[in-house]
Formats: sequence, C-alpha cells, structure tokens
Amino acid sequence: MSVERILEALDRHEPAALARAITLVENQSDGFERVLSHAHARLARAGARRVGITGPPGAGKSTLTEQLIQHYRAQGLSVGVVAVDPTSPFTGGALLGDRIRMESASLDPHVFIRSMATRGAHGGLATTTEEVADLLEAFGFARILVETVGVGQTERDIARSAETTVRVLVPESGDGIQTLKAGVMEIAYVYVVNKSDRPGADTLRQEVEVMLGIRRGNAFRHVAPHHAPRPRADGRTGGLADSGVGPSASPPVRPSAVWEPPVLATVASRGEGIADLAAALDRHYAYLEASGRLVERRRQRLAARTRAVLERAVQRWLVEATRAEELLAQRLDEVVEGRRSPYDVAAEILDQVKAGAAR
Amino acid sequence: MSVERILEALDRHEPAALARAITLVENQSDGFERVLSHAHARLARAGARRVGITGPPGAGKSTLTEQLIQHYRAQGLSVGVVAVDPTSPFTGGALLGDRIRMESASLDPHVFIRSMATRGAHGGLATTTEEVADLLEAFGFARILVETVGVGQTERDIARSAETTVRVLVPESGDGIQTLKAGVMEIAYVYVVNKSDRPGADTLRQEVEVMLGIRRGNAFRHVAPHHAPRPRADGRTGGLADSGVGPSASPPVRPSAVWEPPVLATVASRGEGIADLAAALDRHYAYLEASGRLVERRRQRLAARTRAVLERAVQRWLVEATRAEELLAQRLDEVVEGRRSPYDVAAEILDQVKAGAAR
Repeated sequence: MSVERILEALDRHEPAALARAITLVENQSDGFERVLSHAHARLARAGARRVGITGPPGAGKSTLTEQLIQHYRAQGLSVGVVAVDPTSPFTGGALLGDRIRMESASLDPHVFIRSMATRGAHGGLATTTEEVADLLEAFGFARILVETVGVGQTERDIARSAETTVRVLVPESGDGIQTLKAGVMEIAYVYVVNKSDRPGADTLRQEVEVMLGIRRGNAFRHVAPHHAPRPRADGRTGGLADSGVGPSASPPVRPSAVWEPPVLATVASRGEGIADLAAALDRHYAYLEASGRLVERRRQRLAARTRAVLERAVQRWLVEATRAEELLAQRLDEVVEGRRSPYDVAAEILDQVKAGAAR
Repeated sequence: MSVERILEALDRHEPAALARAITLVENQSDGFERVLSHAHARLARAGARRVGITGPPGAGKSTLTEQLIQHYRAQGLSVGVVAVDPTSPFTGGALLGDRIRMESASLDPHVFIRSMATRGAHGGLATTTEEVADLLEAFGFARILVETVGVGQTERDIARSAETTVRVLVPESGDGIQTLKAGVMEIAYVYVVNKSDRPGADTLRQEVEVMLGIRRGNAFRHVAPHHAPRPRADGRTGGLADSGVGPSASPPVRPSAVWEPPVLATVASRGEGIADLAAALDRHYAYLEASGRLVERRRQRLAARTRAVLERAVQRWLVEATRAEELLAQRLDEVVEGRRSPYDVAAEILDQVKAGAAR
C-alpha cells in the first residue's frame, strides 16, 4: 500500500490503515515522516489524553490496562494502547503470550492494542513510541494508554511523553521502597499498589506515602527531618500543629498550584480500585489544565520532539547520503589495531561530511 | 587545569588528574575528546578486564562490588569502579549516601570509585560510562567494575560494554522469574542470587537455572518442550538419555565454543560466595579468549563506539556551528499552534544544514 493510499484510508477511518501506518513508523520506512506529519495536523483537534503506565515485570500492568479499557468503554470512550516490551534476542519476544492474547481478544472496534518491539530501536524508542501514540490519537482514540516495563532511563523517557504517568508497585516485589530510595520513581503522578489483597500491601503504601512526603506528621519528620513541609494539593500545609510553625509561615496556595501524587490500592484481577484510579487520572488532568501546565508541557514536548526528529533525520542523512558509513568501515581496522582512536576517526568523518554536505 | 596539563599529570599517574579527566568527559567540556583519544592509545597495552554488575535496587550490588574489590586487592590487583545511578530531579541524587560513603572510605590508592550522575545524559549515558571506564583502564586499573541499577534499555547498553556481565538477583524481590519471563535478563554471563541465606533463595536459583535451560532433564523439558537441547559448556550435550536422541544427532562441541551462564549463590554482606564469583568471572574471560570472542567483540564494540562518537560529534556540530537551534526556536510557535509539524520543520532545518554545511 502506498503512503498516499494509507493516508486516504486513515481519513476514511479504516483500522487496517492504522495498523499499516504504525508498521511504517516502527520500521521508519519510506514516507513515514509524511504519515506522521499528516497525523500531527489532526492532533490538536482530537483532544485525547495520554496515560503512561510503568512498573516492574509481574506487577500486573497488563491486567490494570485491561481494566482501564473496560472502565473507559463503559463511559463510551475509545481506547488505544501502546505496550512497549523488551525483546530478548534469544526469545525474539516469543514469551509475550499475554499481550498477544490481549490483542486478539479485543474484537471491540473502539479498542486498538499494539505491542511494540524494542529490537534495535535503542535511543529512538521513546520517540517512536510517542509517534505511535500520535497515530492513535490522530485516528480519534479518546484515551491512549502507554504501558512500559522497567525502571530504566529509556522507559522513563517513554513515560514522560504522557500527560499523566502511573507507577504500579506490588507488595512482594521489594521494588517499592528500594526503588524510591534509588530515586527512580520521581516521574509518576499517580502511584498504585496493585495486588493489594496480599500481605505487606498496607506497609508498602505507607512507606511510599512517607517517601513522597505526603504524611507531614511524626513519621515523615522521623524519616526525613531535613525536608521542609510542602504545601498539600488541597491548599493547606501539612504537619503545622506538630512542627509548631504558624499558618502565616506558608503563603496560601491555590488548589491547582501543587500536585501531590496519590498512592492508591488496587486488585486489578478483580477490578477493585479501578474507578478510583480513573478518577485520580481525571483529577490530574484537571490539575494540569487549571494550572496552565498542560499547555506549558505540550510546548516542551513539541520542542523536544522536533529536536529528536531533526537528530534522527540528520543520522539518516549521515548514513544514506554521505560517505560516513563507508569511511567508518575503512577506518575500523586502524581503530582496532590501536593506530587511531574513535575520536580521530569521528573528527575526520565529520570534516568530510561538512565539506561534502552541499554536494 | 588545561587539557595539556591534565594529560601530563595522567602520564605521571596522578589520581587527581584522573578525577579531573573524568569530570571533563562527563561534562563533555572543551578538549574531552582529546583526553579520550589519549586514553585510547593506552588501552590495548593495559589488558584490563571489565565486569558489568546489574540488578534491581536493593539487590546488594554495592556490597558485592565492595567484596569483589577486597578479593582483587588480596590478589594484588588494582580496581576501578564506575557506579551509574539514576538521579532524581527532586533529590538531586542526595539519597546516594551509600556510594558516597563507599567513595570516601576508600583510602587505598589502588582503588578508585566514581559515581556517575545520569542527569541530562539520556541517550549518551552508555557511551559516557564506557568512556569513563576507558579512562580508568588507561590509568592502569586491572579490573574495572561497572555497576548499574535497573533493567532498562540504557542500563543494558551500559552493561553490554563490559566483557562479562553479572546479573544480581535477590529472593524477596520477585525480580527473578518475572524478569526472566519478560526477557530482560538475556545479557548476563553470570547470575548471582545474593542474600541467599534468605527463604526462597534455592527456589529462585532453580527457577533461573530452568529458565536458562541449564537443567536438561525432566524439569527443563516440562517447562520448554519446544527447545532443542543445547550443548553444554563442558562439551557434552545434556538430556540425551532422557530424550532418546543418540549422541550422533549433535556434532562434537569444543569445550570453549559455548558458554552456559552459571547461577551462583552469595551472601555478600558476609563475603560468602565471592571467591566462586571471581572464579566464574575468570572462567568467562578464559572462555572469551579461547573461543576468539574477545577479539571479535572488541572489534564490534569499537565499531559501535566510533559510530556513537561520530553521532555525538554531529549533534554537537548541529547545535554549535549551524543555525539549527535558532531555526528550531523560531519555528516552535508554528509547531505548537499546529500550523506546521515537527517533521516539516526538521526537514527544513536539515535542508539548511546541508546547504550551509560547507561554509
């Protein structure tokens, strides 16, 4: 199917065209940027919301995602899902049975689920994921859920492209408090302790709340005595009675000025806590709108995206239209033998690219 | 200190110069590529070994690293450590107390420990980490330990730059079997179940071994009946008696041709299992040498590095020597207002870069 025909079919709202467009973008095949440009023009009027869902393997993210889909469908909202999976070189992603089942089970035309392979995508994975979410949004889905495994840098970049990010924890993973201590949980706006019918769930939830500084009482001051009390989302400041600081010490805060991440309990396998989660997502969106952060962050994301797209275009140009790859291959032996460094070779190639760029 | 003086001081083997060189490289300050080129020329003759240590927060990686340091020091080997930490935007990495303690505790001149911040490094973090390891190797450290948190894409790229990677698991983290199922553990050559005095350690170790396909008996065939038996590291093939396949079905395998990752038990806090771990690391290195993979992988790494260095140099040139950033800023409003897409703008800027590159 030509790019032209894909675009026409997208305008006719054909799901098959959406699947083809996503494949085109994933593979960065000829014309993929035209498809994305076409989608971009349809974003502003779509008014969709994006939610990133992150957490360790086994936390129940897929089950939670399925429950959110059902919740939104009951409200008459269409849902697009992008699931980002690490692909093992030796399994080739064969163990992703759950997701495949999820995809084939979805016969509802108002639900579209896509698993993304991470093979070879490396640094560009965050950008490609965001672009696939763009395609879903432009197609008209009202809610876009982006599910990613892991707590790494790339995964956080992926989550950051959503307006709201949910971090899923489970009691038995030991992931909660240790991960918080390692400082890798800062991006979430909503925390969920899933499988909260298991032992240790309440403790984990309390630990996360303490770490997040929501509890301004003795527990919090005991854990982190050097922190100043932060204003709460409801406009009051916490722990004033205990700390002996009068209300005049803190200026009044508008309800929408600060977001304090809630820590929710769910049992996704039984659908428990899903309505609360959806409500928290709505509240966060309302907060972003009221505080002006929605517009501000959209601008930042578009700037970052344009920069990423430019960088990728330059890399492609480097590979396809210049002699960079050929020079790299020629010089490799000298580098391996220690006669030249990667830095000498890179500088030489860059000089040639500059000199030859106008040709 | 000028780059010239840093290079002279490095040649005089001054630790202060090493610290300055690392800072220069981390910040990509003027002259950093000259310092790296200088280091590169000293790599081939150094003959150091690099070991990547990955695992979830709380697995005891730092304790294991400390024990390995002591083990190597007892053998008269010097040790350099690069610890890669995720830095929280709101803590600014303030919770990294353990590492800071570890660094200041090290008064041994034959040990050098450096924590790397991940702030802002994004896609370039793997390259920068490898470059800092280069500086340590060129300085003369015999063993370089690269410790990274997490199971993300970037973290795996970091671990991949080491000759041998160790994956640390703990019984209570739930990280073992779930992570294996998610296919994110494929990079390790040695597995360690740390805190193996805790309940569930033996079970975890067995599960990992089953998943790795080391146990060729009933347990393995039960779990993955579609897998063909793989040859074992000792040159025999496993499970033949059970499967009814005669020895002639598999060609003879040289002892060094295949590496089967061992799954070791340690209690790092008491130093238990450290000698076994060090022995496994030595065996893996010997395997890499004997099989020719050491040379082959070094070549692949240098090719990848040269490409990464070139890409980074091109990005810097784009920012510093062309009008790309200025154009980006000018066009941003049009993108935000939906009048142009990031793809149109990137294409326009790339055209201008090409046209103006020779100037």
